[in-house]
Amino acid sequence: MGMRVGVIGGGQLARMMIAPAVELGVDIRVLAEGEGMSASLAAAAVGDYTDAETVLAFARDVDVITFDHEHVPQPVLRALVDAGVAVHPGPDALQFAQDKLVMRAKLAELGAPQPDWAAVADEGDLRAFLDDHGGRAVVKTPRGGYDGKGVRVVSDASDVADWFASWDGPLLAEELVAFTRELSQQVARRPSGEVVAYPVAESVQRDGVCAEVIAPAPRASEKLIEIAARLGVTLAEGLGVTGMLAVELFETADERILVNELAMRPHNSGHWTQDGSVTSQFEQHLRAVLDLPLGATDVTSEWAVMINILGGPAEGGLTERFANAMAAHPTAKIHTYGKEPRPGRKVGHVNVVGDDLDDVVYEARGAAGFFR
Amino acid sequence: MGMRVGVIGGGQLARMMIAPAVELGVDIRVLAEGEGMSASLAAAAVGDYTDAETVLAFARDVDVITFDHEHVPQPVLRALVDAGVAVHPGPDALQFAQDKLVMRAKLAELGAPQPDWAAVADEGDLRAFLDDHGGRAVVKTPRGGYDGKGVRVVSDASDVADWFASWDGPLLAEELVAFTRELSQQVARRPSGEVVAYPVAESVQRDGVCAEVIAPAPRASEKLIEIAARLGVTLAEGLGVTGMLAVELFETADERILVNELAMRPHNSGHWTQDGSVTSQFEQHLRAVLDLPLGATDVTSEWAVMINILGGPAEGGLTERFANAMAAHPTAKIHTYGKEPRPGRKVGHVNVVGDDLDDVVYEARGAAGFFR
Repeated sequence: MGMRVGVIGGGQLARMMIAPAVELGVDIRVLAEGEGMSASLAAAAVGDYTDAETVLAFARDVDVITFDHEHVPQPVLRALVDAGVAVHPGPDALQFAQDKLVMRAKLAELGAPQPDWAAVADEGDLRAFLDDHGGRAVVKTPRGGYDGKGVRVVSDASDVADWFASWDGPLLAEELVAFTRELSQQVARRPSGEVVAYPVAESVQRDGVCAEVIAPAPRASEKLIEIAARLGVTLAEGLGVTGMLAVELFETADERILVNELAMRPHNSGHWTQDGSVTSQFEQHLRAVLDLPLGATDVTSEWAVMINILGGPAEGGLTERFANAMAAHPTAKIHTYGKEPRPGRKVGHVNVVGDDLDDVVYEARGAAGFFR
Repeated sequence: MGMRVGVIGGGQLARMMIAPAVELGVDIRVLAEGEGMSASLAAAAVGDYTDAETVLAFARDVDVITFDHEHVPQPVLRALVDAGVAVHPGPDALQFAQDKLVMRAKLAELGAPQPDWAAVADEGDLRAFLDDHGGRAVVKTPRGGYDGKGVRVVSDASDVADWFASWDGPLLAEELVAFTRELSQQVARRPSGEVVAYPVAESVQRDGVCAEVIAPAPRASEKLIEIAARLGVTLAEGLGVTGMLAVELFETADERILVNELAMRPHNSGHWTQDGSVTSQFEQHLRAVLDLPLGATDVTSEWAVMINILGGPAEGGLTERFANAMAAHPTAKIHTYGKEPRPGRKVGHVNVVGDDLDDVVYEARGAAGFFR
């Protein structure tokens, strides 16, 4: 086994693999969508990831292919596998992250707890689903959604008339879960079978975007931590995931957890591991896809808090804000993505770890506040 | 102030600046001595650092110049300063790290505790020094020594007859200190004056090479920690250091500390900070040379242990050893330098952190043992 990893996609997740790659001695090479991407330092090529020829050429000089995102089309993934390329996660696993209807059906088969759901082909189907679920539902396009895009809360079947008109195939309707909070379970699995789980974290969303994560999830009982970890392991094994798997969960008032979304890569809800765990999710992902032994998932302090930095109307340059945040919060770890700030765009995040949760939240929010 | 840092020298210290540079959003560019160096991922140019023209051309596209090593000649450093380039540490500070006689004289001027010493121009001078110091002394070439090279313990003036014959100018003779152990104090100072100190560490040398570091130094009293930190701060200020300063110290049986050596850059004895401190010495160095606010120097666990990995006669490839070490020691953080292993050559190190010193030492030695 060599140590050359090819990452398809040049975004911040690829960027954050660079630091552990350098330390581990992994030769990381990125196929970027364009010049000046977040991961451009490791860019070995610029090209279209939907073009099989481009991807096959990129794959020729690496030992394993992995991903910054889940958008590489199945035919391209299959072409890689057919050419004998090690692809992690592989196409059979990735289909469950690429298509929410396929995922829901597979979760049902695995007996994983999830919201009620149905494939709805038209407004009549959706009306029936709404009638059965108190008149409200979440409707999602099975593919292409992220960060709140492709998701609508509806109370009338006509609310997604435009989607029915334009979308090829059924939509996904889900029960609107009366959850008390959202959790995220990170696990890693390597091709030879070893699997490890991180402590479940609490994830606070704003406008459909992950805004703040606290790990471990406050007030989580031993039982909840155990159940979430076991669910993550079951899904990693049941779906055949290799690399990192993020399982986004709803926690309900009666202490059940239900699977909301899946991501088969390092995920925003796991960024806390960079400074709060013995092994960051980015290092773990590299170890997993290279089929190296996995690292310890222990927390390094009682608490870790991650807060996203969103680009906004800039007053004072980013460097000046950066310096002010550092001066006021010397324990804050600021991670930047090398992106031009635009309103609502994730341009970085702040991690703070420590043994007093109030202090940790205070420092993290304070540091992130300089970027608002 | 921009965020472009040019590092002269492509060794492992430059390499280990890459990870924090990526996270901080620092644009790091390395002037490497050749192809395939440790820091080649960030290599912007290959060239001779003793050639002013090469270095000036490299400096044109960066906001600050710093170093992987202290070997850039003074005339080249002065040419940079004359051209208006920000150089950290600057030539005035670097001379104390480049010439041990100049350093000893300056330390005397600053009143810093140090071994008895003298500039010895010939065997007669050295004989007189030996007579005054019980017949034994350490003799050093003032320049060019590292990792035990350029250092000899002598009991007769003729032991360094070859050096007197070939060396231009006096040698440095030092009292052979009956030390109980070696310590290392890391401090950082930024051009605008802020200075921070890490807790003093214990450094165990083998064959003149740093082999193992424990931080904080075991059994160090509050007073010792305070005195070492204050000495580090005094030297950083007194010598005008910008960036990281490592002060290697002898601790004597009567609890005094004496300055042994200085390094004005991240140093092997500070590698533990990568996994054992809120702010690693590599991140701190970048912050300091960019005149950004310095990060917290708190330890993240009770103990951190660093053990060097030296290349030796290889049996089984490095990747296989790597995997075995990871499997047996999931908490070990292995840092590799991208170098071909050769006997005695530093090719990486292992850090382990935790709250029980025996456990931490056991895990670190165990993991490093796979590379022997």
